[in-house]
Amino acid sequence: MAATDGEDVERLRAGIIDTRRSPHFRLQTVPISAVRMGEGFWQPRMTANVRAGMPTFLGAMEEHGVVDNFRRLSGRTDVPFRPASYMSESDLYKWLEAVGLALQSEDLPDLRKTAEAVIDEVAAAQAEDGYLYVADPPPSERFSRLEGSHELYCAGHLMQAGIAYYRATGERKLLEVGVAFADYLTEQFGPGKREQTDGHPEVELALTELYRTTGERRYLDLAGFLLGRSQALRGLPPIAQRPALVDHCVRSGYICSGGADWYAETGDEMMWSNLLRLWDDLVTGKIYITGGVGARHASEAFGEPYELPNARAYAETCAQIAHVMWAWRMLLVTGEGRFADVIEQILYNGFLSGVSLDGDEYFYMNPLASDGGYQRQPWFGTNCCPPNIHRMLAGLPGYIFSTSSEGLWVHFYDTCEATLTAPGGSPVALSIDARYPWDGDIEITLTPDEPEEFALLLRIPGWAEGAAVSVKGEAFAALPQPGDRERSLPAATAQPGTYLALRRCWEAGDTVRLELPLPIRVMQSHPRVAENRGCVALQRGPVVYCFESTDNPEAPVADLALALDPQDAAGGFRAQWQPDLLGGVTVLRGAGVAASRPPSEYPLYRPRGTGPEASRARDKEQATAIPYYAWANRGDSAMRVWVPVASDSSR
Amino acid sequence: MAATDGEDVERLRAGIIDTRRSPHFRLQTVPISAVRMGEGFWQPRMTANVRAGMPTFLGAMEEHGVVDNFRRLSGRTDVPFRPASYMSESDLYKWLEAVGLALQSEDLPDLRKTAEAVIDEVAAAQAEDGYLYVADPPPSERFSRLEGSHELYCAGHLMQAGIAYYRATGERKLLEVGVAFADYLTEQFGPGKREQTDGHPEVELALTELYRTTGERRYLDLAGFLLGRSQALRGLPPIAQRPALVDHCVRSGYICSGGADWYAETGDEMMWSNLLRLWDDLVTGKIYITGGVGARHASEAFGEPYELPNARAYAETCAQIAHVMWAWRMLLVTGEGRFADVIEQILYNGFLSGVSLDGDEYFYMNPLASDGGYQRQPWFGTNCCPPNIHRMLAGLPGYIFSTSSEGLWVHFYDTCEATLTAPGGSPVALSIDARYPWDGDIEITLTPDEPEEFALLLRIPGWAEGAAVSVKGEAFAALPQPGDRERSLPAATAQPGTYLALRRCWEAGDTVRLELPLPIRVMQSHPRVAENRGCVALQRGPVVYCFESTDNPEAPVADLALALDPQDAAGGFRAQWQPDLLGGVTVLRGAGVAASRPPSEYPLYRPRGTGPEASRARDKEQATAIPYYAWANRGDSAMRVWVPVASDSSR
Repeated sequence: MAATDGEDVERLRAGIIDTRRSPHFRLQTVPISAVRMGEGFWQPRMTANVRAGMPTFLGAMEEHGVVDNFRRLSGRTDVPFRPASYMSESDLYKWLEAVGLALQSEDLPDLRKTAEAVIDEVAAAQAEDGYLYVADPPPSERFSRLEGSHELYCAGHLMQAGIAYYRATGERKLLEVGVAFADYLTEQFGPGKREQTDGHPEVELALTELYRTTGERRYLDLAGFLLGRSQALRGLPPIAQRPALVDHCVRSGYICSGGADWYAETGDEMMWSNLLRLWDDLVTGKIYITGGVGARHASEAFGEPYELPNARAYAETCAQIAHVMWAWRMLLVTGEGRFADVIEQILYNGFLSGVSLDGDEYFYMNPLASDGGYQRQPWFGTNCCPPNIHRMLAGLPGYIFSTSSEGLWVHFYDTCEATLTAPGGSPVALSIDARYPWDGDIEITLTPDEPEEFALLLRIPGWAEGAAVSVKGEAFAALPQPGDRERSLPAATAQPGTYLALRRCWEAGDTVRLELPLPIRVMQSHPRVAENRGCVALQRGPVVYCFESTDNPEAPVADLALALDPQDAAGGFRAQWQPDLLGGVTVLRGAGVAASRPPSEYPLYRPRGTGPEASRARDKEQATAIPYYAWANRGDSAMRVWVPVASDSSR
Repeated sequence: MAATDGEDVERLRAGIIDTRRSPHFRLQTVPISAVRMGEGFWQPRMTANVRAGMPTFLGAMEEHGVVDNFRRLSGRTDVPFRPASYMSESDLYKWLEAVGLALQSEDLPDLRKTAEAVIDEVAAAQAEDGYLYVADPPPSERFSRLEGSHELYCAGHLMQAGIAYYRATGERKLLEVGVAFADYLTEQFGPGKREQTDGHPEVELALTELYRTTGERRYLDLAGFLLGRSQALRGLPPIAQRPALVDHCVRSGYICSGGADWYAETGDEMMWSNLLRLWDDLVTGKIYITGGVGARHASEAFGEPYELPNARAYAETCAQIAHVMWAWRMLLVTGEGRFADVIEQILYNGFLSGVSLDGDEYFYMNPLASDGGYQRQPWFGTNCCPPNIHRMLAGLPGYIFSTSSEGLWVHFYDTCEATLTAPGGSPVALSIDARYPWDGDIEITLTPDEPEEFALLLRIPGWAEGAAVSVKGEAFAALPQPGDRERSLPAATAQPGTYLALRRCWEAGDTVRLELPLPIRVMQSHPRVAENRGCVALQRGPVVYCFESTDNPEAPVADLALALDPQDAAGGFRAQWQPDLLGGVTVLRGAGVAASRPPSEYPLYRPRGTGPEASRARDKEQATAIPYYAWANRGDSAMRVWVPVASDSSR
């Protein structure tokens, strides 16, 4: 059943989330379909995603019985129920959501055909009353084990898949399955009904988006009710009152996203002020330099502030995605660059490391150090990460731009073309030409239908000191305009971590050139990060680097130290573009030192000043760093992000 | 039913394990009853154990229904089954074993009366066929969930309790309960019968000791059968073939102990050579300086080599005890000091930290750093540690001495009196007068019934450089005797990490003086221990020190650095005896430096050389270190064992 024409136009205007009627989002999302990726950094990864990753993963799900579990419910197979993998139906739903997002970018007839057959299986499996859960407990046992059953979590992913698929195609079949389940949930849950919620948040986000899609307020009300109880089963206070980020990172990221959605719809100031407090907790002590989130394997959880082990980092790919989702909502509420900075930090590092260059093998954990034996896999006992990666990559075009009453916002830089809507309502064609993140020289061309005055708001990344902007070849140095302050517009100076507002009357073919210097940055950690004491990590632009044994075969990377040039801010390291390496990367080369003694010569503990000494270290050698996201793509290897400085007295 | 006189004499000769008929133990244990502790380091702790810790814990077990669960089985109560705590019956058994060990040291009529009432409850609960497990599954479900049910683990602790109680009192009632269960197990398990084993090793040790106690070979055979399958349910190779220490540390320590027992009885060389390999794995990369074992909270497991986080150390008290048990067996097989060194390292640090100075509160985990909020508790959801501590402390007199055909071995130094048996079979009274570990001056007096030539083998700890020995006031510098080498006797030089053999004809009242220098040792870690890079820990004798916030209130201990005097091996630190502090401890005092900037002024990541700098550190302050075992006895506090050196460039 195709939608009517009016609905069709409406659904095409929704972005990655539909912000259009949310009173407390300052920024509006841009439809994925309005952006066409060009030959830049992300396009080959998105292509691998839809051509290799997604079809292969559906095959694996079929092989493990994930779809058969639905067919069993509809009577289309008599194969017995198989656990397949933990919460496997949610994986299928996320995969369908990814298809829905991919179809908003491009026409993929084969994928669409496959997906619609899957949707048919899902729809046929739904109970009359709207309930759908492949383990199919007797009605009396529904929702009786919510801490672990994740019935609502799965329902949420079903709703999001239906929404994405509807926005892409106008097909309502999967959306209606989600609506029927949501209606059943509104009957079952709420004050005076079932007053618990799922151990794993997620349905809150989905219900809010379903409210945005259908206009049915009861879905938002249920989201709010569940938000107030989230993770109570785990003994945690609700997210609006939680004093710090604790426990399971994916759950935390989803519930914070749900909280931000709730604020966007309701203006709940208590929720908002606590989200800001939790954000500070994240960025001051609980996020890896790679954007990885989650220090502890036990409970897949946050650690204490500054508890950031490297080899034992958990940093589940899903946690990174959950924190992109949260940061995205914080950005849409505020228009503040600090949130976009974290999204970029995650995307180019701890998110992208989650998928192989070929697009069909995945990391669940994303450690910052390995002594080997850790490789991406095509399938896991719990498969939350692969389809989460699929939907993140498929949705990426929806994260590049926003619009607002002030003008057009550019959050991230990659070669693409877009058709945006200026504040006055007329279309503006905008193209970006960039070799970012390898090169900081970015050209943006605007072609409004008619000349119109508005601001082009360019994100100046937090690390970008000395950014320069020119418009039509002339350096831009506009002073703040009268009234800017009243309208909370950013100042027109290229301040790192903010948006530079270029306000002018834009005409067809106007070009803007943004130059972001990309020096190699030798980073160090807060002194309380125990494992990083005396160590540095290399970063260039948003890309965090690592030393992989493949490029540094002389000695174990575990024993590598860097002989930094004290006269050079880059420590003597130099960047070099390698078009044929790892799909094309800029590597960093500089002087390293490896201990001359094998580790076996050191006792585990010894009096200071005894034993093999650093003074006998080998001569300096070339050390080569590659982007962190690209490690473990060339067979088994060891790897380090944080590396000691050779002068460190402890070696 | 008391034992016959013949049995009574026999059981009184058994030590902490009965080595008398084991062909591959080089050393023989000494009965606990042969040693009387004096006013030294351990006596007050053993007294607190039997006077406070054990009675209080039995009260808690009663309160939580642990004993009622037995009464329910015998029909003596109709209170329903309560889970109480995980595997709670094993806690009661370990507590009874502790009573049995304590009664071998001294007459404790009240404790004995209480214990016999408990034994009566246990005996009454046993099924006709010998099975005993308080959850009382239907016979068809017995042993059906061995990975988690731990029926054999509990059975093993029951047997050990019965043995210890019998050795103390001659009472066979509890022993017979264990024997009946063991007989049932021999019917149920073995080739062609049930071929699985418990997820948690322990019964192997117990069956071997039951074999030693009863002479029934079938118990040893079953131990061997189970050893070959141990932890197969967790996918691990048997201990004789395991290439490295992995997984759950307590299980590993118990199964390695069981393997060493198996070697001692059978001479299985494959088992022995692999135990030596696993021992190397332990001491070269997997044991904390405190003797703590277990780097990972997840699975309570070993980490990779050098994976030794401090605040997140698991180091379960039971794991330390399990590794004392293993090391003890390795020592008895070899007479090599390296095994005794590890026992001492554990006992004075990571074991003793497990119990409060008052003796009735316990640590489950023993981290090497804390930022507060971690305190000992009287009761846990899983109570394996408290009664394990009880039995370790109660059994301590049995670890001090051994005998062999060469002579008398002194492993550990504390004030005590003992009656040992010389190689010729005649009794030798031996007394130790020592203020160890605070003072290294140790006086030993021997009084043989008749003058007899044998060796007194004194352990020279691995850290004890420059130890001096005199006999009857004359420096002892005997050269090796003819035939020493053939008899594998240690050389008569005070080599750290070995036993010094003082062979002479001993006469009544002969005195030996051992002087162990106790300099403050500034220790550093293997360079691959990531968190300890640039850090030191202080040790004096066997005692590892820590900096607790209680003594260092000026700034968070998390920000403390040590301003070590480079001209002094002790880094400028000085030892000072404090009789009124923490039950009497020697503290270490020296210069510390705290960063002048609060941690909140540092961003989580920053380019090197930017941000607040170490050069602005505060003036030097007095920093005070206390023994690690004594921390967290004065209210909530923060603590660090490893502390950065102030000159470290990263600060």
